[in-house]
Amino acid sequence: MKELEKKELDFLLNSIRDIKDFPKQGIVFKDITTLLNNKEAFGLLMNHLHDRYKDSKIDFVAGIESRGFIFGSALATKLNVGFVPIRKKGKLPFTTIGAKYSLEYGVDEIEIHTDAFRDIEHANVLLIDDLIATGGTANAAVNLIKTAKANCVDACFLIELRFLEGVKELLKHTSVYSVLKI
Amino acid sequence: MKELEKKELDFLLNSIRDIKDFPKQGIVFKDITTLLNNKEAFGLLMNHLHDRYKDSKIDFVAGIESRGFIFGSALATKLNVGFVPIRKKGKLPFTTIGAKYSLEYGVDEIEIHTDAFRDIEHANVLLIDDLIATGGTANAAVNLIKTAKANCVDACFLIELRFLEGVKELLKHTSVYSVLKI
Repeated sequence: MKELEKKELDFLLNSIRDIKDFPKQGIVFKDITTLLNNKEAFGLLMNHLHDRYKDSKIDFVAGIESRGFIFGSALATKLNVGFVPIRKKGKLPFTTIGAKYSLEYGVDEIEIHTDAFRDIEHANVLLIDDLIATGGTANAAVNLIKTAKANCVDACFLIELRFLEGVKELLKHTSVYSVLKI
Repeated sequence: MKELEKKELDFLLNSIRDIKDFPKQGIVFKDITTLLNNKEAFGLLMNHLHDRYKDSKIDFVAGIESRGFIFGSALATKLNVGFVPIRKKGKLPFTTIGAKYSLEYGVDEIEIHTDAFRDIEHANVLLIDDLIATGGTANAAVNLIKTAKANCVDACFLIELRFLEGVKELLKHTSVYSVLKI
């Protein structure tokens, strides 16, 4: 497994755009669309993740709606494994397991299908999302994977916002890999 | 370019699950999660699409939120091109172009970033979504691609619901390929 070099990390970092005051005043939003539409940056990222996980005996990649779908599905395809969507409440059509998590104001819920991991017992699942902030969604997602009787091999993020310390709680339940720590 | 054989089409079709009365009474929902988490089915589909488009000089794959992200991003990675998300109104953080379309009751809107196709003039874009029903979203998406001064090479769907005739209007603006016609 090859770590990314400093210049590669800088290239990925510089391909992400900061948008001030989105979605609301005071927030600097990390716009990943400028990484996705840059085939060199997107290719570098996906090749790196493929290289990192190709020998980890992953059975499924699970991605969190909706930016996690983008990275998760691309990686599942490269690893030649199945992809499992974790969605906002009410979006998945079959029977589901739900997990609630706290927002700044109020509560939200994500769901996974009860048969998401088919008939594979203790499947090895790689969880992926674009960004970890306070970690509420990620913790709920790991909870869902475990409740569905699978094993969360790693929780992988393109961006970790270090000052929010979202990884601290998550590390009690799974190992974590963030490509870029900001 | 190799067409899918009858048994391959049947395999893909059988890997999609019908859910009655979702999201509301009287609708039979096509659940694609059972195709996605089946690595043989997902792999067959993505290899077929890669084979179909690998010589089409595609510059970008554009996927419609949110199931179109799953197929679009996987295909962009296989083709080694950039991925462009087309999102519901208010979700994209930079300056956008919007296109409205009619729903059964009311109007909805999708958006694309003004710089989605970077500095490539008349970029060749493959549009992808999981399903075409009445075609409202797909027509709006083709409209967005053209307004952003790019060329829609093909609009590609996993599933076409033939009785809704959504392709009829779409064919006036782009060529169309549906893997499964139901």
